[in-house]
Amino acid sequence: MDRQARLGDNQYGKAEIRVMKVDRDRPRHVLHDLTVDVALAGDMDAVHLTGDNSTVLPTDTQKNTVYAFAREHGVEQVEDFALLLARHFVGTVDSVHRATVTVHEHHWERLADHSFARSGRETRTATVAHDGTGTTIRSGLRDLVLLNSTGSEFQGFATDDYTTLAETDDRILCTSVEARWRHGETQADWRASYDAVRSALTTAFADTYSRSLQQTLYAMGARVVATCHGVSEVRLRLPNVHHFLVDLEPFELDNPGEVFHVDDRPYGLIEASVLADGATADAGAW
Amino acid sequence: MDRQARLGDNQYGKAEIRVMKVDRDRPRHVLHDLTVDVALAGDMDAVHLTGDNSTVLPTDTQKNTVYAFAREHGVEQVEDFALLLARHFVGTVDSVHRATVTVHEHHWERLADHSFARSGRETRTATVAHDGTGTTIRSGLRDLVLLNSTGSEFQGFATDDYTTLAETDDRILCTSVEARWRHGETQADWRASYDAVRSALTTAFADTYSRSLQQTLYAMGARVVATCHGVSEVRLRLPNVHHFLVDLEPFELDNPGEVFHVDDRPYGLIEASVLADGATADAGAW
Amino acid sequence: MDRQARLGDNQYGKAEIRVMKVDRDRPRHVLHDLTVDVALAGDMDAVHLTGDNSTVLPTDTQKNTVYAFAREHGVEQVEDFALLLARHFVGTVDSVHRATVTVHEHHWERLADHSFARSGRETRTATVAHDGTGTTIRSGLRDLVLLNSTGSEFQGFATDDYTTLAETDDRILCTSVEARWRHGETQADWRASYDAVRSALTTAFADTYSRSLQQTLYAMGARVVATCHGVSEVRLRLPNVHHFLVDLEPFELDNPGEVFHVDDRPYGLIEASVLADGATADAGAW
Amino acid sequence: MDRQARLGDNQYGKAEIRVMKVDRDRPRHVLHDLTVDVALAGDMDAVHLTGDNSTVLPTDTQKNTVYAFAREHGVEQVEDFALLLARHFVGTVDSVHRATVTVHEHHWERLADHSFARSGRETRTATVAHDGTGTTIRSGLRDLVLLNSTGSEFQGFATDDYTTLAETDDRILCTSVEARWRHGETQADWRASYDAVRSALTTAFADTYSRSLQQTLYAMGARVVATCHGVSEVRLRLPNVHHFLVDLEPFELDNPGEVFHVDDRPYGLIEASVLADGATADAGAW
Repeated sequence: MDRQARLGDNQYGKAEIRVMKVDRDRPRHVLHDLTVDVALAGDMDAVHLTGDNSTVLPTDTQKNTVYAFAREHGVEQVEDFALLLARHFVGTVDSVHRATVTVHEHHWERLADHSFARSGRETRTATVAHDGTGTTIRSGLRDLVLLNSTGSEFQGFATDDYTTLAETDDRILCTSVEARWRHGETQADWRASYDAVRSALTTAFADTYSRSLQQTLYAMGARVVATCHGVSEVRLRLPNVHHFLVDLEPFELDNPGEVFHVDDRPYGLIEASVLADGATADAGAW
Repeated sequence: MDRQARLGDNQYGKAEIRVMKVDRDRPRHVLHDLTVDVALAGDMDAVHLTGDNSTVLPTDTQKNTVYAFAREHGVEQVEDFALLLARHFVGTVDSVHRATVTVHEHHWERLADHSFARSGRETRTATVAHDGTGTTIRSGLRDLVLLNSTGSEFQGFATDDYTTLAETDDRILCTSVEARWRHGETQADWRASYDAVRSALTTAFADTYSRSLQQTLYAMGARVVATCHGVSEVRLRLPNVHHFLVDLEPFELDNPGEVFHVDDRPYGLIEASVLADGATADAGAW
Repeated sequence: MDRQARLGDNQYGKAEIRVMKVDRDRPRHVLHDLTVDVALAGDMDAVHLTGDNSTVLPTDTQKNTVYAFAREHGVEQVEDFALLLARHFVGTVDSVHRATVTVHEHHWERLADHSFARSGRETRTATVAHDGTGTTIRSGLRDLVLLNSTGSEFQGFATDDYTTLAETDDRILCTSVEARWRHGETQADWRASYDAVRSALTTAFADTYSRSLQQTLYAMGARVVATCHGVSEVRLRLPNVHHFLVDLEPFELDNPGEVFHVDDRPYGLIEASVLADGATADAGAW
Repeated sequence: MDRQARLGDNQYGKAEIRVMKVDRDRPRHVLHDLTVDVALAGDMDAVHLTGDNSTVLPTDTQKNTVYAFAREHGVEQVEDFALLLARHFVGTVDSVHRATVTVHEHHWERLADHSFARSGRETRTATVAHDGTGTTIRSGLRDLVLLNSTGSEFQGFATDDYTTLAETDDRILCTSVEARWRHGETQADWRASYDAVRSALTTAFADTYSRSLQQTLYAMGARVVATCHGVSEVRLRLPNVHHFLVDLEPFELDNPGEVFHVDDRPYGLIEASVLADGATADAGAW
């Protein structure tokens, strides 16, 4: 006999809306190159259970709203833009009780007044979750690839019958930083805050003598919490991009930390949250 | 003055370990082509805070263990292999209190006794989380791309000032299924279970007249819960891969559902959990 | 003083036009899922040198033509569809003297009368180059991943001071086949021809005892030429997808060809053309 | 009856060798992050026809040679490194008559003496083909994404029955530059040459009022030829990354070149060679 089913958590929305906004009020144009994701939740039982779509605002409409809001309100600060959209969906659509809007911003370098080259630097992100009463703002970045060519060791680790790794007192440490941090406020100079967090991450990476990637991760997170006062918590996801010293002895060559093979897979993956003292860990989705 | 920081949730491990296991006991070889992720958590404060690595089993050792276990125990059922590894890390390494092992299996078709072609079908997944007392086993699949060329409409939806979408009574419905389902038991014929869930998903997709992708999602999940008795909950993540009917009127041609433009981005994204009656939603990470 | 410049070879067109064509004349629908590239060349000096666009048929028009032709003529055989388009552009646009049209076909498996699952098998390709007088038709495939779990050795190779590779008398041989073959005719049962070539490639791969991937490549090409009578030449590009036997001795385990590490990069890459006796090698772009 | 086959053009080698070279003679380290491809051709009939490997230098040896040469000779200029490798293979392996070595260099920005962030800028390339008597050196770049937010039109184009595109007198022009240029010499200050070509490409893109992407391409190529005296020919491959103005009229908003939808596929693709006056077009593989 068949068992009965019931609906659990659910959300829906439009993902990867690609928006190029050109500010052209002045001769010197400004670009905002964004990818936007919208996810809505609320009174959606009927659509799942019976196909009654009367509470469903189409994902196509969500896309239109993103474009229209970019024109009406500009996109100067991605956190503000995400917040504006999240409040709009919850505030104007009865069936929507929670909106989560994520904005990814891609950097361009200026060549001339209206000419640009994509910088290829990391992507900046902002995620706003709003449910009518509470609002959570998380900023972040991804694909920030950092490397120290010395000042990194890995020794004194636990061993068992499957351990063959040799200890090393000088290795390359390389990672592609994915970071998200939660703000304690809903208004701020977000760009200044972003620049401060990015600077804390890169300087802590560069100036920490590393006994493990875990230690470096914590130093990066602690630097953020210590120096960026609006940040309650930062979550870091750091793949260990392995650079293996090539054995050149068969060719009668030494290799004092000069020639490395860069490996794709597998890779170590270190993940942790670092909290400001007194802050409560956020159980929400990251 | 700088604020103090403290360590929150954390885990570490080796990701994307690529294993090809050949069973060659008989003339007719059997392939198991796996990608394995290991993540461990436990008594890891010292490594983060002081760089004391004495509780850290290297991710290189985790990789070695995966290869050695593939040889010692075989990898006949990916759920069992993941469970074996998870229990090993928690059971033998004092500092490890929780292990999460995910195995992705890639399909090959047989050409001859020891010749194969990669099938390109969906990837099968298994994730086992074990903390010494409790064990959760989730199976899954991803990249199962399904399409109905008729039998799908989208009408009667909510509208607002930003809605321009026309209603349609006949559209292509296409999605790339990502599904994960939680088992109520830790022993089963996992391959038979997988085949049953896959069959429930594809047949429900094919034989449900669709008023929305949400309705189709629920029908797929309910079919799994109804017919696969060991499954407590299934989570589905269904992108709506848009196929837009091309307007051929400028060329004096009609287009009765024959020629479509396949669009990459943006796409709708529908996510929901479907539970067996009586089952409790799982708050754990999916 | 600045040097003068002049225009060399050039072509332009629309790339990656995604077309889904549904044949729905009968209850049992048929899918043709295509990606089409168009490239045109001819009397295009003015557009490059002075910005006079009067000889330029927009790439947007090329896209429209692909969709309209899919409706008017169907896409039953990708070679015929590419030929029809190539002749159209050269025959109707005065400034266009040569057209090259490539069609990629993606496979789907039938689930029901109007339900399908994408197969993930290799992509079938057809490239037609037409210049008003001559026509060249090349068919092909890519992403056909083949593996032999035994029956492959690599020994007796040249060595120098930089050689460390050990000889092996039993290894996994795995490759992702990219093949293109040139037809001596412009009319044929292309699907039957495709099936014959694919079968020749897979069976030659499977039943050739391999002393090197080069030898296997030649056996595959020679099988095509020998058994597919319309084919004048076949070009093969075979990456050697390395599977390295894992050393399990540190764990007191043997490893008689059972557990392999699959490596991403670097990889060997073997490329060659195989010609039918009497055929002239084609100097044209492949 | 089966037809006879014969071997046509062929080459083999190791592809995507990932090398990180750290110059650490001084406290301020320097990184060279390379991906190297080697392809060899020559007396290789026996390996294809009979599996006699005695003329085949293993691709594994080629990889070893790249690492050893990086240690022995450094990789200061990628063109020189490619030339050194190409000459080595042809000069020391009897069976090798032609070597083609391609080096891709990935940029990093300095953070501190031994700390770096990957810049994400374009990839620099160098390809050297050497056959014992002749040598061709081509430099290049790829993934240089450029955008003009105004100063681009597309009007006065050819039309036919399938044309629906409207003329525009102000559009975004965006492309991802792939360029390769051939040098007339085998010794030069390659880095200075690279910087000069890159500057010619970006400034010509920025300061050319564009009537078509073809015209912009030619202007870019002509600028290179005019100002970079060692360059005989430059080949450009420019996808037209479409930015479509979003129609905001349904929402009672104008859109004076401010909000664009960035589309992934299809895209226009413009390819041409620009030659220095007096230079002969190169028929070789690009």
